[in-house]
Amino acid sequence: MANSGTRTVAVMTAIRQRIAARSLPAGARLPSIRALALSMRISPSTVVEAYERLVAEGVIRSRPGAGFFVTEQPAPLTLAAIGPRLDREIDPFWVSRASLEAVPTLPMPGCGWLPADWLPQDALRRGLRGLARAQPAMLGDYPSLLGLLPLRQFLARRLGTVGVEVPPQQVMLTDSGTQAIDDICRLCLEPGDAVLVDDPCYFNFLALLRAHRARIVGIPRTPAGPDLEAMETAIARHKPRLYITNSALHNPTGGTLSPVIAHRVLKLAAEAKLTIVEDDIFADFEDEPSPRLASFDGLERVIAIGSFSKTLSASIRCGYIAARPDWIERLADLKIATRFSGNGASAALVLTVLQEGGYRRHVEALRARLRRAMQHTIGALAKLDIQPWLVPKGGMFLWALLPNGIDAESLARASIEAGMVLAPGNVFSPGLTASNRMRFNVAQCQEPRVFALLEQAMALQSSRRAG
Amino acid sequence: MANSGTRTVAVMTAIRQRIAARSLPAGARLPSIRALALSMRISPSTVVEAYERLVAEGVIRSRPGAGFFVTEQPAPLTLAAIGPRLDREIDPFWVSRASLEAVPTLPMPGCGWLPADWLPQDALRRGLRGLARAQPAMLGDYPSLLGLLPLRQFLARRLGTVGVEVPPQQVMLTDSGTQAIDDICRLCLEPGDAVLVDDPCYFNFLALLRAHRARIVGIPRTPAGPDLEAMETAIARHKPRLYITNSALHNPTGGTLSPVIAHRVLKLAAEAKLTIVEDDIFADFEDEPSPRLASFDGLERVIAIGSFSKTLSASIRCGYIAARPDWIERLADLKIATRFSGNGASAALVLTVLQEGGYRRHVEALRARLRRAMQHTIGALAKLDIQPWLVPKGGMFLWALLPNGIDAESLARASIEAGMVLAPGNVFSPGLTASNRMRFNVAQCQEPRVFALLEQAMALQSSRRAG
Repeated sequence: MANSGTRTVAVMTAIRQRIAARSLPAGARLPSIRALALSMRISPSTVVEAYERLVAEGVIRSRPGAGFFVTEQPAPLTLAAIGPRLDREIDPFWVSRASLEAVPTLPMPGCGWLPADWLPQDALRRGLRGLARAQPAMLGDYPSLLGLLPLRQFLARRLGTVGVEVPPQQVMLTDSGTQAIDDICRLCLEPGDAVLVDDPCYFNFLALLRAHRARIVGIPRTPAGPDLEAMETAIARHKPRLYITNSALHNPTGGTLSPVIAHRVLKLAAEAKLTIVEDDIFADFEDEPSPRLASFDGLERVIAIGSFSKTLSASIRCGYIAARPDWIERLADLKIATRFSGNGASAALVLTVLQEGGYRRHVEALRARLRRAMQHTIGALAKLDIQPWLVPKGGMFLWALLPNGIDAESLARASIEAGMVLAPGNVFSPGLTASNRMRFNVAQCQEPRVFALLEQAMALQSSRRAG
Repeated sequence: MANSGTRTVAVMTAIRQRIAARSLPAGARLPSIRALALSMRISPSTVVEAYERLVAEGVIRSRPGAGFFVTEQPAPLTLAAIGPRLDREIDPFWVSRASLEAVPTLPMPGCGWLPADWLPQDALRRGLRGLARAQPAMLGDYPSLLGLLPLRQFLARRLGTVGVEVPPQQVMLTDSGTQAIDDICRLCLEPGDAVLVDDPCYFNFLALLRAHRARIVGIPRTPAGPDLEAMETAIARHKPRLYITNSALHNPTGGTLSPVIAHRVLKLAAEAKLTIVEDDIFADFEDEPSPRLASFDGLERVIAIGSFSKTLSASIRCGYIAARPDWIERLADLKIATRFSGNGASAALVLTVLQEGGYRRHVEALRARLRRAMQHTIGALAKLDIQPWLVPKGGMFLWALLPNGIDAESLARASIEAGMVLAPGNVFSPGLTASNRMRFNVAQCQEPRVFALLEQAMALQSSRRAG
């Protein structure tokens, strides 16, 4: 059943567990390749592959002629070094760590990005060759303080197309969308300040707000936006400084903000002097632009942020903040103080790809491909009695309800043993109200083994509960 | 005298000042090109160029047939939009903002980086072409949590050559050296905590520590390192959490830490449980490696950080942190929370260039070129009665003493009027003890006009004092 990649990971996991449990202490000799292959009923080449990877990670080392040994610097240092620990609390970092450290050949229905071959690879390659012919200053100098002006001009025009009117001098480039939100939090949050988020919301908002020691207040998310009554109560009770949200193709639900709710949210925000961060990272996945808080508000209380990790590249990183002049002035000082400048080469590359005629076609093809993947995933999950909470208008995420008795967190644990990363509902839920939900990335659900592994893990969980 | 670039900037500055002073309010029509050219005694094409640049910045706009108008969104938003304001306090941000926003054709003896054509342009171009042929995952996926493993392995070996023994799993990539220090500050500083820095030190340490609301405590820097008596007193009095320093080719003095002082600093740090951040950004400028705190200490209390902005590219950004396992574990969580991941493409590019045989030759040629530039600058400054505080063993910085009666800050103000960015002593000095000092970047002092402008500005200051 399992392919060679899965078996290799199984060997690596077994060795790491023995090191973590000190049954293989620092300096100890590992089982010989032949002995381990026999005991695990796998081929010696799989063991060789696993040992070589562990050597590359610094977990073990090879002494030619003598065998493999646990490094003296003992092992369980970081999740990065030992892979996703099964005993780690399923917290907002869990899915991130598991996804970032997963072996690339394994399915990752829980991760938040597209497979690399869905991205505009040819355009990226042309962009890199173009950059190789750029002026010396572009390759060597720091970019200007707010970031490459032509990209800021492009972004200002692009924001105009979704109704957000902003001049380029009110757009600052960042190194990522997450960094954009972090910058805003740094300027306005003190430890203990309350921040509103949707419940459920993108799990890394929770990790970020923890890093700021904010009080996280979840507002139940309805299919059309936040629950207004709950929001009003939370504002009165917690006096929040910020509300961080996605309006279009909300992560994880895939829902879209309705114009009526948008207006009411802005009214509540104005009364409470609340600043709203609108993360528009999924903008390009929409066929028709849905309402944006920033467009109704004219950037008075709303700060618009975004990035290109989802449609262009997660390796060549570039984000932006569009905000009021007084915010931009303070953000620019913060940028100097905390990173001095941005990545000029990445900005140039992103601009080249975005400006190419091919980008529009790429995005259109991507939307169509995601629609097909969405249908396929909904169908395959239905066979496992997993139902959509909402059928999204686009994008890659499907927020799904597990059948009775199946706990998402247990399922994710069982699944990671088989090497597959899932995103259990409660990592998205500040109120931990989503124990029977799971977010699926439909672009990462194209292989039948995803559903086969899921079925196995579900069966295992049912039998454990029965037993 | 002034070239066309300088004249264009003069026009832009004049217009910005009128907008800032509201003598040209929002919506007002600008002087016609012909009228302004006549009144400023410059060619109409210079005015056209200046107006076009202001249009590109969004400060003014053109209505075909009607002329140029101040944009309705009024202008003096950010230094980035209006250029270095002459009335801005000369604070730690001053030189950064002025340098980042300077028109590239003007001399920048005050800036902290090499001219772009001193950097390994051919290797960067080859690297970009190589990256254009990389695997899809390299171009599209997030890199692993700590960052590209082969680059971390390379950096671990490189740290080994200066005596710092560290496995790759204790090296985390960041997007810049500044970000590396910021990350460390985020994990260990509370507002009000005391932090030791050298007096003078890199001015952006001061900006960064202000962003963290730390209490900055300056330790006078002697040619061989920090003044130990002052450090001992400061530790007893302020109970600092961190000491941030450069050991090799200290910025701004160019000094090098002596082994004796290194040992005593580590002893003091151990007694006081003080963590030391050693910023080794100038490592490649040294002919012979000088003592590193991290090598004596074995990363027990020292965290080593660095980047490649000085010798490779300031546009393709990549830094690193080498630290104890418990630090790396927490830094990795912070990385996820605050930026999710790093820039994989930049890391791959940096690795390609560093691994090339040509990089070593580039660095050797750079050192020789800097030696010549240092001698030239020392000679040219001597004619203006400006003397070195110390003749550095290498690198780009010369910390110089101005003649009696010349104030560095006034000189920098006078100089920016002529379009040249200088770095006055007190921006580096937490105790403001360097009003008669100036940091010169010798690589940016290769044009005779630097010294001509300096002489003019000094003469102007003398005459003002006399008058």
